[in-house]
Amino acid sequence: MDIATGLGLAAGIIVVTAMVLMGGDLHMFISEHAIIIIFGGSFAATLIRFPFAAMLHGLPLGLKFAFTLRAQTPRDLVDEIAGLAEIARKSGPVGLEKMTPDDPFLSKGVRFVADGYDADFIRDNLERDRDNFLTHLDEGQKIYRAIGDCAPAFGMIGTLIGMVQMFANMTDPSKLGPFMATALLATLYGALVANIFCLPIADKLHGKLVEEEINRTLIIDGILMIRDSKSPTLVREMLLAYLPEKHRHDEAELAPA
Amino acid sequence: MDIATGLGLAAGIIVVTAMVLMGGDLHMFISEHAIIIIFGGSFAATLIRFPFAAMLHGLPLGLKFAFTLRAQTPRDLVDEIAGLAEIARKSGPVGLEKMTPDDPFLSKGVRFVADGYDADFIRDNLERDRDNFLTHLDEGQKIYRAIGDCAPAFGMIGTLIGMVQMFANMTDPSKLGPFMATALLATLYGALVANIFCLPIADKLHGKLVEEEINRTLIIDGILMIRDSKSPTLVREMLLAYLPEKHRHDEAELAPA
Amino acid sequence: MDIATGLGLAAGIIVVTAMVLMGGDLHMFISEHAIIIIFGGSFAATLIRFPFAAMLHGLPLGLKFAFTLRAQTPRDLVDEIAGLAEIARKSGPVGLEKMTPDDPFLSKGVRFVADGYDADFIRDNLERDRDNFLTHLDEGQKIYRAIGDCAPAFGMIGTLIGMVQMFANMTDPSKLGPFMATALLATLYGALVANIFCLPIADKLHGKLVEEEINRTLIIDGILMIRDSKSPTLVREMLLAYLPEKHRHDEAELAPA
Amino acid sequence: MDIATGLGLAAGIIVVTAMVLMGGDLHMFISEHAIIIIFGGSFAATLIRFPFAAMLHGLPLGLKFAFTLRAQTPRDLVDEIAGLAEIARKSGPVGLEKMTPDDPFLSKGVRFVADGYDADFIRDNLERDRDNFLTHLDEGQKIYRAIGDCAPAFGMIGTLIGMVQMFANMTDPSKLGPFMATALLATLYGALVANIFCLPIADKLHGKLVEEEINRTLIIDGILMIRDSKSPTLVREMLLAYLPEKHRHDEAELAPA
Amino acid sequence: MDIATGLGLAAGIIVVTAMVLMGGDLHMFISEHAIIIIFGGSFAATLIRFPFAAMLHGLPLGLKFAFTLRAQTPRDLVDEIAGLAEIARKSGPVGLEKMTPDDPFLSKGVRFVADGYDADFIRDNLERDRDNFLTHLDEGQKIYRAIGDCAPAFGMIGTLIGMVQMFANMTDPSKLGPFMATALLATLYGALVANIFCLPIADKLHGKLVEEEINRTLIIDGILMIRDSKSPTLVREMLLAYLPEKHRHDEAELAPA
Repeated sequence: MDIATGLGLAAGIIVVTAMVLMGGDLHMFISEHAIIIIFGGSFAATLIRFPFAAMLHGLPLGLKFAFTLRAQTPRDLVDEIAGLAEIARKSGPVGLEKMTPDDPFLSKGVRFVADGYDADFIRDNLERDRDNFLTHLDEGQKIYRAIGDCAPAFGMIGTLIGMVQMFANMTDPSKLGPFMATALLATLYGALVANIFCLPIADKLHGKLVEEEINRTLIIDGILMIRDSKSPTLVREMLLAYLPEKHRHDEAELAPA
Repeated sequence: MDIATGLGLAAGIIVVTAMVLMGGDLHMFISEHAIIIIFGGSFAATLIRFPFAAMLHGLPLGLKFAFTLRAQTPRDLVDEIAGLAEIARKSGPVGLEKMTPDDPFLSKGVRFVADGYDADFIRDNLERDRDNFLTHLDEGQKIYRAIGDCAPAFGMIGTLIGMVQMFANMTDPSKLGPFMATALLATLYGALVANIFCLPIADKLHGKLVEEEINRTLIIDGILMIRDSKSPTLVREMLLAYLPEKHRHDEAELAPA
Repeated sequence: MDIATGLGLAAGIIVVTAMVLMGGDLHMFISEHAIIIIFGGSFAATLIRFPFAAMLHGLPLGLKFAFTLRAQTPRDLVDEIAGLAEIARKSGPVGLEKMTPDDPFLSKGVRFVADGYDADFIRDNLERDRDNFLTHLDEGQKIYRAIGDCAPAFGMIGTLIGMVQMFANMTDPSKLGPFMATALLATLYGALVANIFCLPIADKLHGKLVEEEINRTLIIDGILMIRDSKSPTLVREMLLAYLPEKHRHDEAELAPA
Repeated sequence: MDIATGLGLAAGIIVVTAMVLMGGDLHMFISEHAIIIIFGGSFAATLIRFPFAAMLHGLPLGLKFAFTLRAQTPRDLVDEIAGLAEIARKSGPVGLEKMTPDDPFLSKGVRFVADGYDADFIRDNLERDRDNFLTHLDEGQKIYRAIGDCAPAFGMIGTLIGMVQMFANMTDPSKLGPFMATALLATLYGALVANIFCLPIADKLHGKLVEEEINRTLIIDGILMIRDSKSPTLVREMLLAYLPEKHRHDEAELAPA
Repeated sequence: MDIATGLGLAAGIIVVTAMVLMGGDLHMFISEHAIIIIFGGSFAATLIRFPFAAMLHGLPLGLKFAFTLRAQTPRDLVDEIAGLAEIARKSGPVGLEKMTPDDPFLSKGVRFVADGYDADFIRDNLERDRDNFLTHLDEGQKIYRAIGDCAPAFGMIGTLIGMVQMFANMTDPSKLGPFMATALLATLYGALVANIFCLPIADKLHGKLVEEEINRTLIIDGILMIRDSKSPTLVREMLLAYLPEKHRHDEAELAPA
């Protein structure tokens, strides 16, 4: 569980609710008009913009991964893979049969090795999995960004529709207030959806994408070395060499000079 | 038929209509002023911006392709081409004479092979077709994007013209409402044209462009291999190797680990 | 004559005039204040931004070329050059003396060949001409774009000046209207100058620049091949090979599959 | 101490305070509403956007380095390293034991050499330090920029919430003033946080990042040459050759011709 | 003297003054509030953004060069250098002693040759000079651009502060005018500083930077060839070959075909 995403969303909701309650009641901030135009409009534009399959896979996968935190750093992963190499060295592929790593992708690879599959088959299968996964995560990121980009425009459209209705029916300027308040809600909703939800989620997914590409490539290389019964020391050394510099060290060493 | 584009457009129209009807009648949202300035202005600017031929080909082709869905995935296409290679192997080019693939581009290539044309002629002719097609699709995409970029500016121009007229004739501020409502309609129209129609269509066309480039290149390579009586297995293998990773597998395998 | 540019400008003017007349009289839309600030301000900023020589050459050349349409497609040009090669082959350089192609650049090259100039001299002279021409066209494009970018800012400045004067002298809010109308005219003028004139012209010039670079390079290569008495077939073939794919075919063949 | 950052911030605060006091009292410019939405909203969005560890390290490190000025120019650093090389040459690594350069990174390197560590160990350790440091500084820069980008949006959100409350409760337009004033404070706070603090700090950190990369790479190379007992003249010459041209000369020589 | 910069600035000031005077008196457009926030705020943000030394050198150097016009085109420069090569050929380096070219950079190089300095020393010294100069000019350009980018934001901040004060003290809406006028002045000042001064100056400096890099590199190469007693013809030919195409020819030849 990526607590930061949850905490951030909770903080955003608390801040906005506090603001709303400090100045009156929540009631006046609920507008079905604004909900329809922001969510309906963004949904319509996204439906045109992306292929249907991309929306179906990308939206939920993006949401899931924005809230998921990999329990292991790449460095932990290297340690775990080196441990598996140790076992495979000692008791052969059969020894891996009872191992069930937490990471489902690593777990799948271990099962393949334990079942004695061919190295080519393992590489093909795992690379295909990794690429499909990254493609969907990238689609998810693009969709959240596209929604974050068009939500404020639909907020403005909602406010314009409200203002046209207000002005067209206006007889007494002093009664203009409540209508104006409702019209402005669409702009407010659009800005909130974009700035508290969609754009930060898209940025986080971009970071996860980079991270998962490193991790899954690392796992594939490690599994193939285990398959080839490479020594644990060699496995660790070669995997560490693949990592970008910043992941090679423990966080504890990170105090800058 | 690309249902997503149609559904998206329908959803957009329904959302806007609902918004309009919830607050009064549709009547007050129709303004010939706004229609003239948005469509006239965007048309004028596009006429200056692009060569005449590009507009003539690009606009309808773009619209057609935004609503067209290729029934086949690249993977299906590879299967179909491998099937044609099988037939050509067994009964020679003559066996292809009765084959009429759904895809008109593939169909044209098959006809060329069946009629026994020269490989160079086939390549030249099909590549020329593909490039012309992609050029026009790209022009279409650019034109929709250009309109989507300038429509909001013309909306603002329309609103400014309306406001100047309103202020110039203003005697009683309390009667300002209906004029203001009309003036705002131009901005509303401009934002709708850009955000519900033009920009999403341009984004979709960009995706189709990438997809069609892959598909048509695939078809050309496949047709030439059929012309050379390559074995169906080889045809399938080589075509799959050309595909970007994400298209190589069936959607069914796509459940991310 | 590039009819599209003229038609577009005419359409823009008609649309705006229609809008203005539909709501009252043209009179209230004419403001010497707005004209001074938009044209004076943009002129001042452009004077600082670009060297004097660039403005002197770029502005008129840009305007001229935005309205000029090359009568020949690159394909026609290749045909014409191949025709000239035919004549030069049959009757020698002297045979070219009476030829006066419509294109002044091609005409100059033909004259050089007919007069028996050295190949190096011809190449140097024509390349110099082409580069000067492209440099000036590019400067023109940049200047129109710079004006299109700053005109809306000067419109806002004009409106701000008008609003400061209006508010400073305000005693009776109900008389605010006509002053507000005048103040808004500067913003309107700025938006019109940018969106109907400068930015579309800059985009068109960018297209012409790409096109002229292709055409003039083609002409230089063709002229040099004629000078070397290459066979018309070879001239045609080599020139076609230089063309980007989309220019190689006749428009008639362009119906996409 | 980087006086410019401190002076700039102080100047910004003085300017804003002067503006506020010239027109009345400070009191009316303090709004807990605005503080909550700007800081709470930006904090929430940043929490979603970046990994937790990046915020924890990046924000304080960025702030520290924005106010820290390296006392030495790269040129001074080369002189100091050449001096250390001189000592190491004369009295061996032991002679370095009492040297404690001001720069903590250089100091660490000198200690490693004095303690007789292996060249590979020194390089690995120092490069790891440098890369960790640069990664955190870069994260700091990105976080300040992200806050500077979203603060104005949260300012607008705060103002919208205030305006909705104001309009919803409006009965007498003439009493609208104080509410409007409070609503506008959120926009004001957002613009101040972005333009006086976050964006300039992010720009400064970007400059420091480039500078520190040069300096620390220089130190690593210098330390390794001292470890290899290279002659001081060679050390100076090689290090100067690494510097970008602008750092090679003393500032005194910089009077442009 | 670069007359265009001066003329442009004068034109900008005349246009704005004319606008101001046409609608009343200059008096109501002077606001110490606006001056403090625009100049104070931009100064504060620039102080944080750039190193102190960059501001000290960049701002005056930028201003000086925006108004300085090189009397010689690169082509003239080549002629002058070829002339110097002629003299050096005939009467040896001593003959250059009395030559004092107008360009101070060329003059310095000539002095070096006349004094019989080493070729390496001359190259090092002149390249150092050129790089320092270009670095400072580039810093100047970046600072003017940064001010042009943040001045409108500080204008908005000034207007917001004014509006908060106005609304907070508002009792009679009809007296709101003069306060509103004053508040708007900050936005007006910010837009003027950015669009009439800073951004055009930054663009001009960018052009000068490109031009000076060409000229000074040309001078260095020319001086070194004179030092080596190369023949004037060779000097001219080689220097012309270095020039970008557009500078090789006289302006007189520039009439496009």
